[in-house]
Amino acid sequence: MRDVAIVGAFQTKFGELWDKSFRDLVVEAGIGAIYDANMGGDDLDSMYIGNMSGGLFVGQEHIGSLIAEHSGLTPIPSTRVEAACASGGLALRQAIMAVASGFYDNVMAAGVEKMTDVVDATPAIAAASDQEWEAQQGVTFPSLYAMMARRHMYEYGTTREQIAGFAVVGHKNGALNPKAQFQREISVDAVLNSTKVASPLNILDCSPVSDGASAVIVCPAEDAKKYSDTPIYVKASTQASESIALHSRKSLTTIESTVLASRKAYDIAGVTPKDIQVAEVHDCFSINGLLAIEDLGFFEKGKGGQAIEDGEIERDGTIAVNPSGGLKARGHPLGATGIAQATEITLQLRGDADKRQVDGAEVGITQNIGGTGGTAAVHILSRDL
Amino acid sequence: MRDVAIVGAFQTKFGELWDKSFRDLVVEAGIGAIYDANMGGDDLDSMYIGNMSGGLFVGQEHIGSLIAEHSGLTPIPSTRVEAACASGGLALRQAIMAVASGFYDNVMAAGVEKMTDVVDATPAIAAASDQEWEAQQGVTFPSLYAMMARRHMYEYGTTREQIAGFAVVGHKNGALNPKAQFQREISVDAVLNSTKVASPLNILDCSPVSDGASAVIVCPAEDAKKYSDTPIYVKASTQASESIALHSRKSLTTIESTVLASRKAYDIAGVTPKDIQVAEVHDCFSINGLLAIEDLGFFEKGKGGQAIEDGEIERDGTIAVNPSGGLKARGHPLGATGIAQATEITLQLRGDADKRQVDGAEVGITQNIGGTGGTAAVHILSRDL
Repeated sequence: MRDVAIVGAFQTKFGELWDKSFRDLVVEAGIGAIYDANMGGDDLDSMYIGNMSGGLFVGQEHIGSLIAEHSGLTPIPSTRVEAACASGGLALRQAIMAVASGFYDNVMAAGVEKMTDVVDATPAIAAASDQEWEAQQGVTFPSLYAMMARRHMYEYGTTREQIAGFAVVGHKNGALNPKAQFQREISVDAVLNSTKVASPLNILDCSPVSDGASAVIVCPAEDAKKYSDTPIYVKASTQASESIALHSRKSLTTIESTVLASRKAYDIAGVTPKDIQVAEVHDCFSINGLLAIEDLGFFEKGKGGQAIEDGEIERDGTIAVNPSGGLKARGHPLGATGIAQATEITLQLRGDADKRQVDGAEVGITQNIGGTGGTAAVHILSRDL
Repeated sequence: MRDVAIVGAFQTKFGELWDKSFRDLVVEAGIGAIYDANMGGDDLDSMYIGNMSGGLFVGQEHIGSLIAEHSGLTPIPSTRVEAACASGGLALRQAIMAVASGFYDNVMAAGVEKMTDVVDATPAIAAASDQEWEAQQGVTFPSLYAMMARRHMYEYGTTREQIAGFAVVGHKNGALNPKAQFQREISVDAVLNSTKVASPLNILDCSPVSDGASAVIVCPAEDAKKYSDTPIYVKASTQASESIALHSRKSLTTIESTVLASRKAYDIAGVTPKDIQVAEVHDCFSINGLLAIEDLGFFEKGKGGQAIEDGEIERDGTIAVNPSGGLKARGHPLGATGIAQATEITLQLRGDADKRQVDGAEVGITQNIGGTGGTAAVHILSRDL
């Protein structure tokens, strides 16, 4: 198999983008990535689109064809990939596989979600859980993650303040990211005093409803210097499944799909968590950020809360987590998130992350999950091949 | 890249299956394919699921995780692929790429749709067209295909009877297929006198609303004899895009994505249409079957109607088209169709198609399209490597 590099990356502003349609957003991201790669559209051989629920949010399926048409990229193959909030991560993975295999050379992986065109986004988001066995019984995502938070507090003595701290770090970084939905800092007190959603989680523990898109372009590593002075190399791309329903799991405090996918990724890349300086993890809720830094092996299970409290995940800490602001502050247009994570790590490793740059970032990781962890995708990226 | 073989294939009965849920259907198909391949679930390394709109039909996205759980196949990667009615064909293609590349050895490609759990399937089906620029303006799929039919009649003198003839052939074959939704013959007169849907198309020109699932298992060709006495080899797997909106096309009577994908497939496989004995084509409407046999190069553009009238597409004709009954008679659970086509060709090439067996079938082709042809997937399968 061939080595693969990222040579173009772009993210639209995330937010409540009333003046931009689904197709506008993804075309903006795609063109941004093509320009960033110093390519023309003719250079692309295939594309993958991560999107969770065009059907429920905007009544649109057949998204590959729609986007190929509106990007002027027909007749190249254009394939939509879906795994709830991990749709972007899986689209990136398919693009990497398409290049690694030799099927195609230059492939775009884009992600998009337009979530604000419905009166209530909750039913669409609930489609990421087990509809018949979870959603129809009344559980929502905040309530599922609330159970995980309670159990983590019970098992490990994690404090409410430590969980809130993850959101605080995200906002601190997001304040420096001009593409972030929320560009302002918040305090632990603000999180604790914000509106209750599902105890113990408050509104400031929750990622927002967002519109946005992101795109990256991958090509064979041997061609990468043609398109970029600082290509970023894909050292590992892994994926694992777990039961979609939380009640089927052995543990509420470990997301097994993340553990399995990340261990395999470390093995393939030949690195350990200590070799990684920067991470973008899936904090759809603050507790999930905390679980991620444990499940990825940055900190021992049960010690994530203390690590947050001790400032270890800040940009100048042991490992910089979510320098983009993460899902909480950058925003979480579901299908776009996995690609936005890869875009941020690409910028960080290039040294192009401006005010939020992590010093000395050489190796980075992304962790993108669907639902409560029914799917996990992990990518390890590096400045060096 | 490695050569790839199909070593397992299974289709559930298609129809209005009120007693079977979405998850029941796909698990039944998956287990059927695993048994057919003489494997156990532990032998599988990854899976792809073709599904058009779990979101709009049953409120379920995150389908890969759902199915991995209910098939007992966690933690293997499980990825849903969507391209409207071509979802199955693209899922098969991703599975083939995953094996050809060396990423995985044994991979399942399944397809599923549960369409009868909604009061009206039309809005969900409309999501395969351009929602904002077609569906919201009032056009439906029957009306889009009706325009294509009218134009074909105008340009080439194709008769209404010739178009109806495609559905008649499908029902003749479907009457011999115990898995088909409709197992009875119809006449040209019956088609012409059935309820008008969108002139010139009547209800018997239209494929039905169906529930069903299908699955195949692919593996490296070099391992195929471990699992099957008669592995069927993948000679080509291709895909092309076209504008999703019919009004953006140069022609209403040629589906360019089929033309491009099939020409590339013939080139890769080193065959011509004359080398093919059996075809499963995408007759969501009778006119689309007629377009397919022209666009695939079996007959000259404009001569498809005469070929149907002359019996050339019957099982004992020049080329046997849709021996399964096709979308019209076998049924059309959208995401399952592409996999069901591959299942039928696999059975035909093995010589296992019972009463509907096409004599001397050595090489077969599937053509699976999304919407009005915004996506096309073509596979050429053969008894010989």
